[in-house]
Amino acid sequence: MVEQDEILKLHAAHTGVLDIHSDLAVTDKADLGKAYTPGVAVISKLIAAHPELKAKYTMSGKLVALITDGSAVLGLGNIGPAGGLPVVEGKALLYKNLAGINAIPLALNQVSVPAMVATIKNMSLSFAGIHLEDITAPKCFELEAALKDELDIPVYHDDQEGTAIVVLAGLINAAHVVGKSLRQMRIVVNGVGASGLATARLLAAVGVKQLTLVDVYGVVTADDQRYNQYQRNLAKQLGTPAQLKGQPLAKVMADQDVFIGLSDANVLSAGAVHLMNHDPIVFALANPVPEINPAVAEKAGATVIATGSSQYPNQVNNILAFPGLFKGLLTNGVKQVDNALQIQVAQALAKTVSNPTATTIVPSVFDSQVVPNVTAAVAAYAQAQH
Amino acid sequence: MVEQDEILKLHAAHTGVLDIHSDLAVTDKADLGKAYTPGVAVISKLIAAHPELKAKYTMSGKLVALITDGSAVLGLGNIGPAGGLPVVEGKALLYKNLAGINAIPLALNQVSVPAMVATIKNMSLSFAGIHLEDITAPKCFELEAALKDELDIPVYHDDQEGTAIVVLAGLINAAHVVGKSLRQMRIVVNGVGASGLATARLLAAVGVKQLTLVDVYGVVTADDQRYNQYQRNLAKQLGTPAQLKGQPLAKVMADQDVFIGLSDANVLSAGAVHLMNHDPIVFALANPVPEINPAVAEKAGATVIATGSSQYPNQVNNILAFPGLFKGLLTNGVKQVDNALQIQVAQALAKTVSNPTATTIVPSVFDSQVVPNVTAAVAAYAQAQH
Repeated sequence: MVEQDEILKLHAAHTGVLDIHSDLAVTDKADLGKAYTPGVAVISKLIAAHPELKAKYTMSGKLVALITDGSAVLGLGNIGPAGGLPVVEGKALLYKNLAGINAIPLALNQVSVPAMVATIKNMSLSFAGIHLEDITAPKCFELEAALKDELDIPVYHDDQEGTAIVVLAGLINAAHVVGKSLRQMRIVVNGVGASGLATARLLAAVGVKQLTLVDVYGVVTADDQRYNQYQRNLAKQLGTPAQLKGQPLAKVMADQDVFIGLSDANVLSAGAVHLMNHDPIVFALANPVPEINPAVAEKAGATVIATGSSQYPNQVNNILAFPGLFKGLLTNGVKQVDNALQIQVAQALAKTVSNPTATTIVPSVFDSQVVPNVTAAVAAYAQAQH
Repeated sequence: MVEQDEILKLHAAHTGVLDIHSDLAVTDKADLGKAYTPGVAVISKLIAAHPELKAKYTMSGKLVALITDGSAVLGLGNIGPAGGLPVVEGKALLYKNLAGINAIPLALNQVSVPAMVATIKNMSLSFAGIHLEDITAPKCFELEAALKDELDIPVYHDDQEGTAIVVLAGLINAAHVVGKSLRQMRIVVNGVGASGLATARLLAAVGVKQLTLVDVYGVVTADDQRYNQYQRNLAKQLGTPAQLKGQPLAKVMADQDVFIGLSDANVLSAGAVHLMNHDPIVFALANPVPEINPAVAEKAGATVIATGSSQYPNQVNNILAFPGLFKGLLTNGVKQVDNALQIQVAQALAKTVSNPTATTIVPSVFDSQVVPNVTAAVAAYAQAQH
């Protein structure tokens, strides 16, 4: 309770945790004439003639819109756009503190996907990039795809690409720790919402062959109409056998090398871990309570255990990805966060851990090499594109 | 040219003139847990249960959206939303520097009024107020009215209310200087766009009885279909005689006490000033070139002359209004900028000049009393409402 009071006090002290900062002093007529009118007309006329110069002479060249509709906030679910604001504000703070990136938190009403697209498109001139946050699936898939089509600035959904990148980074090092080949491992992804689907897609893109998706109705198969088109399409792409349709998680855990949970508290039993192949890797990433308690997982034989919490070793945290990633995007003029880029960033993150062990598969969020390494990976990707 | 280069350099140095500032350091796990997850969930849950608390615990309680579509930028006209960005960014800078107010510059695509309303409404949760800027008439009238209906935060159009306030402040002191009663004066408003219409409306609200509107087709009358409904309705309210329909400016200048130009360069002749009543007051506010050169107006007999430029005495500049006004709105929870509030603010601004003379009818934008006096006027207004 003392802790809660302290948090409330901290966030109320400045009415949130961000301020707008003025870069110029205006103390006399000469200052005013240069910062504002009449001098600003010089910039306005120049941009009117060459609209692309707005990115050079206005904040729109560096400002990331950090947008949520509050439909899938942390582990809290759909708590509405106002409830989502503290999270996007916190992320904007981390952008600044960790990477010097300027991001503005915006909460949008929960309207239809076309209405959200129109709203974001109508104001997109003001921004250098769009960071979507805490938007529920499958809405987030449609939204992101439409925005990527419509806009010529990077569009990134942290719950999808961010999670996928950090999970892949952790998995690269976990595979190394247990001496298995990432691509040869048998992997179950439990929870195929925004983050689960994006993670499974990235694993498929990196060459993982044996990948099974499970959600509330059991194994996802191409013909299971209880799942949405995005989930069914991926199951089809993965070649999930039709006879697995609806099989419960416990039934498909035998001989799996990896469990990746992006689902709910306590859905993975110790018994299921017992069924896994030797040296099981368990990513129990549900927040705030993981799919299996790490101590239970360890006792059940898991060799590498990761969670979403800072209470345990191996915190799979998107903070490892987004600040450096967006810094790299903006610095290098990269417009799309595609699979190849996500993989390069994941590899760079994995390499940031110089000597991976079972309890150190990802770097600390306070490791000062994280942002530069991620940014360098984006720069290398951009270089290779040219 | 040196000046232009200096301006470009200044605005490019930081990619615009604003930054996002983080109010909290995040150097360890404890900091992170309070600024971001898991602590931020405390705030999110609280706001989900009590949405009004977002204004206490997030930036949305203090952030003003400074929105343009670039359809009427400075004296440059419709140069598009990107061209409008430097102006809203400059105003956001002034908000911060002069009043400590946090404003974020946003350029919206030039879409229909309903689409603009939807866009602004969809993101309005993120803000404590809406400042509209450089939006052309009559679009701005429809937009502002619709937003005032839809939103429960203050909506303010600087080109309308801001200009009206500062013109009225100047006119109060100008009337004093020439020893005339404001309400008894005969006034021509030339240029009935956003600022002209709002100014004329405010003058009518303050009790001016003899007010004539003139624009490109001559005198505005209730039955002149060349003018829009807002212009015709005001002419009707003012009781402009039908026989004045389309009369040119020069024909109605005889015996006028005041000329207020919010129109175009050099549209007022010395001859027209000669026709005015004794001690003419000439507000030639077109930018960058006024309706009449102040030296010419003076030679033609004008006693008090104001312009929109800092080159001459009596600069009628919205900077005198908006920073203190919005500070007052946010501090006192005032939701509407109605006529009564505009009049009180104008009176406070007028009083800030302790001893008005022909060359000092408005305070300097660098007068440190301007913001506190304007803010105090809003506080007094709020007090009287309770």
